[in-house]
Amino acid sequence: MKYKFADRMSHIPPSFVREILKVTESPEIISFAGGLPHPVSFPVEKIKKASHDVLSRYGKEVLQYSTTEGHLPLREYIAGRYASQGLRIDADEILITNGSQQCLDLVGKVFLDKNDRVLLEKPTYLAAIQSFSLYEPIFKSVPLEDDGPDMDYLEDILLQNKIKLYYAIPNFQNPTGISYSLEKRKKIAGLLSEGDTVLVEDNPYGDIRFRGTDIPPIKSFHEEGILFGSFSKIVSPGMRLGWIVAEEEIMEKLVIAKQASDLHSNYFTQRVVCQFLEDNDLKDHISTIKKSYYEQCQLMLSLMDEYFPEGVTYTRPEGGMFLWVTLPSGISSRELFDLALKDKVAFVPGEAFYTGGEVDNTFRLNFSNSNNEKIEEGIKRLARAIKKLMI
Amino acid sequence: MKYKFADRMSHIPPSFVREILKVTESPEIISFAGGLPHPVSFPVEKIKKASHDVLSRYGKEVLQYSTTEGHLPLREYIAGRYASQGLRIDADEILITNGSQQCLDLVGKVFLDKNDRVLLEKPTYLAAIQSFSLYEPIFKSVPLEDDGPDMDYLEDILLQNKIKLYYAIPNFQNPTGISYSLEKRKKIAGLLSEGDTVLVEDNPYGDIRFRGTDIPPIKSFHEEGILFGSFSKIVSPGMRLGWIVAEEEIMEKLVIAKQASDLHSNYFTQRVVCQFLEDNDLKDHISTIKKSYYEQCQLMLSLMDEYFPEGVTYTRPEGGMFLWVTLPSGISSRELFDLALKDKVAFVPGEAFYTGGEVDNTFRLNFSNSNNEKIEEGIKRLARAIKKLMI
Repeated sequence: MKYKFADRMSHIPPSFVREILKVTESPEIISFAGGLPHPVSFPVEKIKKASHDVLSRYGKEVLQYSTTEGHLPLREYIAGRYASQGLRIDADEILITNGSQQCLDLVGKVFLDKNDRVLLEKPTYLAAIQSFSLYEPIFKSVPLEDDGPDMDYLEDILLQNKIKLYYAIPNFQNPTGISYSLEKRKKIAGLLSEGDTVLVEDNPYGDIRFRGTDIPPIKSFHEEGILFGSFSKIVSPGMRLGWIVAEEEIMEKLVIAKQASDLHSNYFTQRVVCQFLEDNDLKDHISTIKKSYYEQCQLMLSLMDEYFPEGVTYTRPEGGMFLWVTLPSGISSRELFDLALKDKVAFVPGEAFYTGGEVDNTFRLNFSNSNNEKIEEGIKRLARAIKKLMI
Repeated sequence: MKYKFADRMSHIPPSFVREILKVTESPEIISFAGGLPHPVSFPVEKIKKASHDVLSRYGKEVLQYSTTEGHLPLREYIAGRYASQGLRIDADEILITNGSQQCLDLVGKVFLDKNDRVLLEKPTYLAAIQSFSLYEPIFKSVPLEDDGPDMDYLEDILLQNKIKLYYAIPNFQNPTGISYSLEKRKKIAGLLSEGDTVLVEDNPYGDIRFRGTDIPPIKSFHEEGILFGSFSKIVSPGMRLGWIVAEEEIMEKLVIAKQASDLHSNYFTQRVVCQFLEDNDLKDHISTIKKSYYEQCQLMLSLMDEYFPEGVTYTRPEGGMFLWVTLPSGISSRELFDLALKDKVAFVPGEAFYTGGEVDNTFRLNFSNSNNEKIEEGIKRLARAIKKLMI
């Protein structure tokens, strides 16, 4: 049979990264390409105990169908964490999702008609491009500076009031590792209060700040914003638990979309994670993760300082899992990728993070999922490859 | 802010059932309204052991990100079960989803452009109506008889070759409990081989046949068909594990849609269920479920035979969880619902299962999630209400 697929399927950018990740899976490659948390961040023994306890105490109940909104005590826990950060969120304003990736799909479903405009950061999280693409919007991109978006550009485009959604990752952005300054956050809130653009604020890495001081989300200054969260980087990504925060009018629509999409998120896992959170201090656990990522990031940066040739610049993240390298203009990161792979080291070329897919002189390095030995050897090899290409 | 939601959100039928289920949650109501498996079907102790074992043996691995396609040994297990039923399916033709509800969303994403035609059974699974509605198709409906669709109608509409998807639940259909005969399945396969309609065959209840002989899926006679499966009714619905079977060309698109939707299904749960399946004989477990559902169904039918007034007819399912009642014409099941609720017994009026939402003289009874005492008392009360209305 000749299948006729939906038009939307032709809008998805080629999954170059998927191909890269396949190539770099091989154990002899030192890969800074993936976006995996370090396994040190997974509390295996505590999850084992929590699984045992919820099944022993609550039995069949935790294996039955449950509500679309998600387990109330888990939503209350999340609301409580926001409260401790000074953000007043009601448990009813929280919907549990299959990781924060699903938040993107649900927001796309609920808001996006074909040719609606979505403003992305330039560069941005590549799976957000894929996810929104299914709803066939027109993408616009605001360039990123070291402390957030280019405000002149942002002000211009928001004031035209033609942007339906503005998708932002203000903390330790994927792929660049940069964070929005407090000043820019407040200014963005001000700009948003004047138009009809809906802020979609993604925050998968916010808890992993290993330098500097926490900065409140834009939602603190702009109540109407939608905020995403995730347990992937602080408990387990394989358990696929994230959440959306949105006010009642939006939440009603999100719940309908969630119900139509998969009825509800995995209830057993919600109960296990909730039990884990009740029995343990998440702060202690996050401290371990921060310590590890800080050391890995600092090691990577110091090696880059030492070995990368002049003219190569990079971000110095205060948290998260990624940093972003810019080669001298005219040097292609795609060519560098091919060259580096011959020397068995890998990263993700920058083009994947742009909606245009333009060839480019930037690339992303992940520092969270490599030990010191691999970071040391990998950065040296990468430096050699860069030098070869720059001659 | 005045939110402007996507057009697709206005196409979702009102979630009357959601409202019903809220009303009937109260413990003093005897509810035949829900669609919950009986908790007897949840292997709590064995899941506890499997959780412990995968975390002990494989540790951090089971909490990490994983592949979009799903855990290979789990897909191999599913392929093996099909093989034992005489169906040759490769593990690569299987994608693990968040329950079979997500299969509906993914198939809608991959195939449906606005105004494409989707053929449904009349009546059909209400959450399929909701799920497909998000892709704004035009619904057509083929009337159901006791042994499957009205073949004259089906032949006419398929031969016009304007139907993109035909969504069928050939085993113990929700809501009616009826099954397609072998003869009709073969004839449908023949009809489908002549046009471009894609068969979407949902089979959440197929394993729970408590009378008669298993009948192979339509896909046995029509390789190009898409087939859904689910662990919800045979292991646990709260763990949200289902799957899609589709050939390579479709699978490629489904994997892209799945990745954009939520990266992958809960990996921890996939590993736990896979361990449970390796350590236990699923057949034994399913036997327990069948025995229980058979007794509940038979009890309900015998009470209906005894107490329901003449003129009321109903299906006699050979499996699954539901049966379907037809009141004499002119008697409204919605009015019956209101009357029955006063006497603290509930069901789902038939209108929810039609795309037109027409008021109707049919209703659905669930027999899987009530004990004998409740079935006895509930059917007596329902009989009283029917008699009142028919006077």
